[in-house]
Amino acid sequence: MRITALDIIPIAFADPPLLNAAGVHEALALRTVLRLRVGDLVAWGEARGGAIPPEAVAAVRDAVVGLDVFATTLVERAVDEALRRTAPTLTRQGRLTAFSGIEVACLDAQGKILDVPVSTVLGGAVRDRVEFSAYLFFKWAGHLDSDDRWSDADEWGEALDADGIVAQARVLVDRYGFDSIKLKAGALDPDLEAGAIEALAQEFPGLPLRIDPNGAWTHETAVRIARRLDGLLEYYEDPVLGIDGMSRLHAETGLPLATNMCVVETDHLKEASEKDAVQIVLSDHHYWGGLRRTKDLAAVCEALGMGVSMHSNSHLGISLAAMTHVAAAIPNVAYACDTHYPWNRLDDVVRPGVLEIVDGSVAVPTGVGLGVEVDEEKVSELHERFVRSGRSVRDDGGYMRRRHPDFTDALPRF
Amino acid sequence: MRITALDIIPIAFADPPLLNAAGVHEALALRTVLRLRVGDLVAWGEARGGAIPPEAVAAVRDAVVGLDVFATTLVERAVDEALRRTAPTLTRQGRLTAFSGIEVACLDAQGKILDVPVSTVLGGAVRDRVEFSAYLFFKWAGHLDSDDRWSDADEWGEALDADGIVAQARVLVDRYGFDSIKLKAGALDPDLEAGAIEALAQEFPGLPLRIDPNGAWTHETAVRIARRLDGLLEYYEDPVLGIDGMSRLHAETGLPLATNMCVVETDHLKEASEKDAVQIVLSDHHYWGGLRRTKDLAAVCEALGMGVSMHSNSHLGISLAAMTHVAAAIPNVAYACDTHYPWNRLDDVVRPGVLEIVDGSVAVPTGVGLGVEVDEEKVSELHERFVRSGRSVRDDGGYMRRRHPDFTDALPRF
Repeated sequence: MRITALDIIPIAFADPPLLNAAGVHEALALRTVLRLRVGDLVAWGEARGGAIPPEAVAAVRDAVVGLDVFATTLVERAVDEALRRTAPTLTRQGRLTAFSGIEVACLDAQGKILDVPVSTVLGGAVRDRVEFSAYLFFKWAGHLDSDDRWSDADEWGEALDADGIVAQARVLVDRYGFDSIKLKAGALDPDLEAGAIEALAQEFPGLPLRIDPNGAWTHETAVRIARRLDGLLEYYEDPVLGIDGMSRLHAETGLPLATNMCVVETDHLKEASEKDAVQIVLSDHHYWGGLRRTKDLAAVCEALGMGVSMHSNSHLGISLAAMTHVAAAIPNVAYACDTHYPWNRLDDVVRPGVLEIVDGSVAVPTGVGLGVEVDEEKVSELHERFVRSGRSVRDDGGYMRRRHPDFTDALPRF
Repeated sequence: MRITALDIIPIAFADPPLLNAAGVHEALALRTVLRLRVGDLVAWGEARGGAIPPEAVAAVRDAVVGLDVFATTLVERAVDEALRRTAPTLTRQGRLTAFSGIEVACLDAQGKILDVPVSTVLGGAVRDRVEFSAYLFFKWAGHLDSDDRWSDADEWGEALDADGIVAQARVLVDRYGFDSIKLKAGALDPDLEAGAIEALAQEFPGLPLRIDPNGAWTHETAVRIARRLDGLLEYYEDPVLGIDGMSRLHAETGLPLATNMCVVETDHLKEASEKDAVQIVLSDHHYWGGLRRTKDLAAVCEALGMGVSMHSNSHLGISLAAMTHVAAAIPNVAYACDTHYPWNRLDDVVRPGVLEIVDGSVAVPTGVGLGVEVDEEKVSELHERFVRSGRSVRDDGGYMRRRHPDFTDALPRF
């Protein structure tokens, strides 16, 4: 059961102009599709855009081909060695990011070989459905065209105040049945953002609410907003930067803090625990090194008495399937996970049908492997779009500066 | 790939009279063999004696049959629920101990279904051979017979002083090529035991040495012996009891401390780390809950900056194979593992050939599953011996009291 081929395919897909601390999402999000073959069998993974640097693509492919698709530790080592050689500036986290999508493809292949879902390969699904939260964003009405004029508004319209956020939440909750809500903050005035949380609490009484300023706030602002929102938040995600900052904030407010910013590597866990900086780690298999390493992370969180849930970036269905399988296989995932899928699903490479968000949750796919069918023509189309775009990196800040030339993404900002 | 049958087979096999802090090994060691079937396929696991209490055997078997042999998390849950119902006094660790051998059998089955070794199922072997250390014991010349007279001496003879220990080490090192040595202590006078370490250091210059008093020493004794053995020990294993005791000892001596006594559950890891009580965790898949949970433990140790190696109890070849596969699949196993195998191998249920200790290490079996062939007749023979023995628990202290009526296994003793 040797890997016989690996194609590393950069793609670009439509993304709405979502605001965040770094700027605003460009019209195209970048991502990497991994197509792995074991003889006639085709398996799929999805990774961050640029996860495997162009100069390393051939070496990574050559290192992986010929390995046993079940020996993922050895695949990881081979990828790591290829990257150290061909992309020496990558950090360890960068190398794990490069490996992650390949690991997902290996697990998809394993499930297909075994005729079982990936959740079973991971030890078995302890739940039939995985809960996700509504992910709200302040946003522009539409994208800028090449002359910096407005294109048409998208179906979601503008959301630059509490009313816009409540209207957006209403659509998401009505359409997908979400039972919890996360607001991406750090983009506008903190009091305006806190006001949006208050409006959500009024409009959706009882629904758990979260706010994520992505480290854009000073300690003083984070404390002030914590007091203002006292009793309204399920958890407070990355209001300030760094383990020490989070530790100080937790000591002062007592609020449970979640992170996908200050604990992003194994080496951060001990310090975060000792300083009681983080109560919930938002895992992300795209940079923790795949689904098995996400399970490892959950084991560490269990040992340290930390909660665990899941972070998201703009992604397509291969990743949603992977996230659903691994969340189903981890007993201590006790919070609804994040997903951008409602913002990106119309440009998906996965054929519709399996990945539906209903009652705020996704049924764990029961088909073999990831349990989703990938549309190869759509992959080609999105790859061509990537090539035509001429882009290779995500630049939220540069895009924001086309409209607001003084914008800076230095943090903290407020 | 559903589990179609599970046989839980208690066995008894020959064990030499090895001394330890709890007393002395009886003439028969007790163990549990698990025979698991997936259709025509037969797979094997090995667990502690009495791991699955007799009153729970039927419930555990019924809970497991019908489950997917790949969904080990679900198998663990089913075993856990069956035990909560039928053996409610078992602790969580007791339930994990009951599950462990079943998990090994599931992994053996997985490897056989996939036509790969268990090490590959676990992500792949990062080494071809796994190092073990020579495991020395003070011991009687032979066993007592039923009238408390001496039976014949065994081939190892008596070892009750430094000379006896050095002679034993010489045989073990010559026969198996061990490159490190562990002395089980806590049985005799601490200074006699320390003297044996000094004699070993003289006889085997450069070989890493370890001493394991199993918590039999007071803080003062442990400090005194630490100073006496300064510079001679690779690590100091469980000289004193408890996380607080180990923490105090490490603070005072600076010696790296290993344990299989004060960190034996996930819940102990955080405290042990925060108190800097343990520098090396000796994992044991027989009570940590199987090979995958041993990998989880290694991930936690990595995150906490702790070393990891492997503890042993009297065992046969099924367990040696399992230990070898999992140690091969864990990158951060950086010490030679413990094994009792040289003491018990002549009464093994595994046919000879695969599991040879050469140059102090065991080649990771390359056959499918655990890669060993189990002699079913030998299993039946050892089961009959178990039944005839009328025994159900290990009683090192009771056996010691037949010769030394005043013996007490209360700790610390010295």
